[in-house]
Amino acid sequence: MNRTHTCGELRRQDDGKTVKLAGWVAKRRNLGSIVFIDLRDRYGMTQVTFDEEHAPLVKDVRNEYVIEIEGKVSVKESPNPKLATGEIEVLADKCTVLAEAKTTPMIIADETDALEDIRLKYRYLDIRRNPIKDKLLLRDKVTTVVRDTLHKKDFVEVETPILSKSTPEGARDYLVPSRLYNGRFYALPQSPQIYKQLLMIGGMDRYFQIARCFRDEDLRADRQPEFTQIDIEMSFADEEDIFAVVEDVMRNIFREVKGIDDLEFKRIKYVDAMEYYGSDKPDIRFGNKLQDISDIFRDTEFKIFSDVLERKGVIKALVINEHGFSRKDIDKLTEFVKIYKAKALAYLKLDEGTFSGSLNNALSEEEKNSLKEKLGLKDKDTVFIIADDKKIVDVALGALRSKLGNELGLINKDEYAFAWITDFPMYEWSEEEGRYLAAHHPFTSPKLEDLDKLIDDKANCYSRAYDLVLNGYELLSGSVRIHNKELQAKVFEALELTPEKARERFGFFLEAFDYGAPPHCGVGIGLERLIMILTDTDNIKDVLAFPKTATAVCLMSEAPSNVDQDQLDFLGLDIRKKD
Amino acid sequence: MNRTHTCGELRRQDDGKTVKLAGWVAKRRNLGSIVFIDLRDRYGMTQVTFDEEHAPLVKDVRNEYVIEIEGKVSVKESPNPKLATGEIEVLADKCTVLAEAKTTPMIIADETDALEDIRLKYRYLDIRRNPIKDKLLLRDKVTTVVRDTLHKKDFVEVETPILSKSTPEGARDYLVPSRLYNGRFYALPQSPQIYKQLLMIGGMDRYFQIARCFRDEDLRADRQPEFTQIDIEMSFADEEDIFAVVEDVMRNIFREVKGIDDLEFKRIKYVDAMEYYGSDKPDIRFGNKLQDISDIFRDTEFKIFSDVLERKGVIKALVINEHGFSRKDIDKLTEFVKIYKAKALAYLKLDEGTFSGSLNNALSEEEKNSLKEKLGLKDKDTVFIIADDKKIVDVALGALRSKLGNELGLINKDEYAFAWITDFPMYEWSEEEGRYLAAHHPFTSPKLEDLDKLIDDKANCYSRAYDLVLNGYELLSGSVRIHNKELQAKVFEALELTPEKARERFGFFLEAFDYGAPPHCGVGIGLERLIMILTDTDNIKDVLAFPKTATAVCLMSEAPSNVDQDQLDFLGLDIRKKD
Repeated sequence: MNRTHTCGELRRQDDGKTVKLAGWVAKRRNLGSIVFIDLRDRYGMTQVTFDEEHAPLVKDVRNEYVIEIEGKVSVKESPNPKLATGEIEVLADKCTVLAEAKTTPMIIADETDALEDIRLKYRYLDIRRNPIKDKLLLRDKVTTVVRDTLHKKDFVEVETPILSKSTPEGARDYLVPSRLYNGRFYALPQSPQIYKQLLMIGGMDRYFQIARCFRDEDLRADRQPEFTQIDIEMSFADEEDIFAVVEDVMRNIFREVKGIDDLEFKRIKYVDAMEYYGSDKPDIRFGNKLQDISDIFRDTEFKIFSDVLERKGVIKALVINEHGFSRKDIDKLTEFVKIYKAKALAYLKLDEGTFSGSLNNALSEEEKNSLKEKLGLKDKDTVFIIADDKKIVDVALGALRSKLGNELGLINKDEYAFAWITDFPMYEWSEEEGRYLAAHHPFTSPKLEDLDKLIDDKANCYSRAYDLVLNGYELLSGSVRIHNKELQAKVFEALELTPEKARERFGFFLEAFDYGAPPHCGVGIGLERLIMILTDTDNIKDVLAFPKTATAVCLMSEAPSNVDQDQLDFLGLDIRKKD
Repeated sequence: MNRTHTCGELRRQDDGKTVKLAGWVAKRRNLGSIVFIDLRDRYGMTQVTFDEEHAPLVKDVRNEYVIEIEGKVSVKESPNPKLATGEIEVLADKCTVLAEAKTTPMIIADETDALEDIRLKYRYLDIRRNPIKDKLLLRDKVTTVVRDTLHKKDFVEVETPILSKSTPEGARDYLVPSRLYNGRFYALPQSPQIYKQLLMIGGMDRYFQIARCFRDEDLRADRQPEFTQIDIEMSFADEEDIFAVVEDVMRNIFREVKGIDDLEFKRIKYVDAMEYYGSDKPDIRFGNKLQDISDIFRDTEFKIFSDVLERKGVIKALVINEHGFSRKDIDKLTEFVKIYKAKALAYLKLDEGTFSGSLNNALSEEEKNSLKEKLGLKDKDTVFIIADDKKIVDVALGALRSKLGNELGLINKDEYAFAWITDFPMYEWSEEEGRYLAAHHPFTSPKLEDLDKLIDDKANCYSRAYDLVLNGYELLSGSVRIHNKELQAKVFEALELTPEKARERFGFFLEAFDYGAPPHCGVGIGLERLIMILTDTDNIKDVLAFPKTATAVCLMSEAPSNVDQDQLDFLGLDIRKKD
């Protein structure tokens, strides 16, 4: 061993001890003939001082050299309050260079102006920086809390295959050609969904896995081709049971990591989330709910509103208190809601008892007074109004609510507001395919009271799927699964999946339900998203050791890369030029 | 929740309680008008009794049905000592069938005569059997102990990529075609070797990962295309440090799982392992070491021996006590050693002071007496002798030692005998390629005292690679790594890897050594092998939830499978018929 202590360990009470430290040279300063070196390792930083006699030992030592030093701990006259070891220094009398270092292409410091491409290419240098290192340490801490919590509840971690079969979850699979079976492929799992359900049928009762998942999708800023899911499934259980398990997991994580002890978990039905927040991932850290004001305009003379109501649209309002919006602000917000297909953004301001704004002349005094009463408007309030088809109104006004909530500081950034969103629709209409698709996945149980709507009234058929939302982000989704073969067949029928096609795609899975499947339910929690929220970053790359770019490239290793022809020959593959 | 207790939980003190259980019908017996059902879940089995009044509730219930019952716990007059719940029964008055079951294609019982193909195809049924379920539970327990132990020692679990770049470890990679970069591929990692070394360069100091690894090799009975490695790496550390960490991990595992508290870890240099056991994975649970008897025959008249010695071969002996080998036994053993390229197996028996056996007439009395003295031969001893090139003698006689150790009961099956094998050769000669290859991997440090032999005396150059061997199995291998760029370049030169080729294969990795690499070392522990030893099975499939066959097929899901043409089009791949 090259050290007696780490660089984060020595304190006042170690005064006088002879110690051996090893680490990286974070900084070297010469003060006359004395040399100070800040020696860094994962655990912290220690000041090492070489006096006149010993300074020659480090005359060639530069930043990021790896050195081993020996010396005596000495209490400093003027402590450095920024360092945990700041009360002491080590007066060194020996130094061995363990490895030299060239000038690094980026500075190893908490703040960096290095381009992301440089940081990714030299990821091993980026990891030396506290902001990245600390996130990786926290990630390990979180998975440890998850495992501890679940183990105490009798959950068993089971490793399921990575070389698996295509799962029917819609996204594109990463494929792995088989060498032994020419023309056949494994698929990397998009989730262990089928395996975990089979484990339930296998009687494993309570399963979890910190599972690697893969999706070959075009990446967005918060996506990576491979990601990690805290995957949980339990038998003889329903929503209440799985919610309780997940809530305990979250409570323990937030207690350990954030010292927060009073998490609350609200419950909001999907339809209410859409109605009041215009989103199935509402940020409930602030109010400003959307309010339906259609009733006020049943007999309006304002043609735009009456037209909307005539074609069964809705008129909804978002009230923002005490903020002066300029004409320019309003123009920008109008552009913003157009992204969400709203045709316009109307507004009214109340100022010293009088209204102004785009709707001021269009509406009657009576309508304005009704609005004032219904919305409880106070002086300095602004009301944003969108009239359109309900879906457009909800989504556009919901997006506006989020935007303003963030930009106007309506959100307490220290709050963690969880909400279970329940009773999702069973299906969603695909414009592209002209038919209903499974909103969650085809193994999700419908609400038992909606069984009669499964086939005949898809638009009003709800499911036992649920999401857990945290501060406006979807942290997990899950569902109570179908465990009855007849019901599963009916759902396939509803999804226009013929028995033949269903058999071909997941016949082995369906067959398993012939042999006694217990009722079961589960969730998959996005680990990266959770860590991002806990470490307050919106860059998913920050929470992975070796992330890929938005085009799925590892800038460090340059994967994916060309392979030798004989590797292709072994696999019986030819590369075809794509158009 | 469908239950108040599990099926393994109820005891005498629960007498009189009203309980709700759920599980699978393991067995149903009718005794007149009373029906007994053994209800099974992961936690155990409970007898549920339906009296005459309630028997109709279960008239249609058959084996492997999933049912939920309610009833009163009652202490049995004659307890069943085979069950943990055997002191009680539940007198049921309610029963709900949660799922029906067809007759299963295999019997769900500890003993099964089902063919392995059936067990793999219906793996979810196989998992219901205790022998499989218990191994999966134990696997989880072991990884939990590993994580606990390593976390307490400041190791951090870091997840490294699965979509990675080809590692230079010799075996064939599984490739994943890139959709965005036509003709380029990711490789599934054979181990996280390069990533973990980069984490050391990144200052992570102490890393571990329960890591999935992949090798597209032709499978043997104890191989799977994907397997799990307990991967550990530490900085500012040498052999003593990593050995201490691994020994603590093993002590904790064996204490938790086996209740064994006194593990010992011997150390044997590679050359000694070969010399005395003829194997680099010696089973040291028994003695019977190989003994070099060449000296006795320096002036022999026995031509076979003198020829061997003249061409610098050796003559070695294996003594087996008190076992009568028949002529037929000897013939079989002779055939056996021929597998290992030995040309013959000579032997001598000592019986009531007189020798017999194939060498009896060939050797002089003096030679036989010298043998008797050197080997300390006693009555009823048999000496097996092979004379040949040293490598052949060691390997063949070592294999014979293992075989006889197993077959003659020389091994205490309850013993766990660990040995560190150290000082492996730096290179191994490849007949096929006509040159020296890296014996471990090209990042392994040579012994510091052998630096001068790196290029000029490869046959005698030893490395800082080590294995941990348990009961004749290699449990892990590892090494102190090179952390110095010049030394690495020299090793590449010795391996006839040009700087260009080295750069092409792992240039990014080499570049990292420019920026301050700490001394580091590590190991990769084969998790499946460890679980196999702990659960006393020689079938690797037993310790995986969803294993593949020897031809890398999942009989349950039928992966690998055909994919749609448009998936190939997306990837720009054509399937070529292989010869």
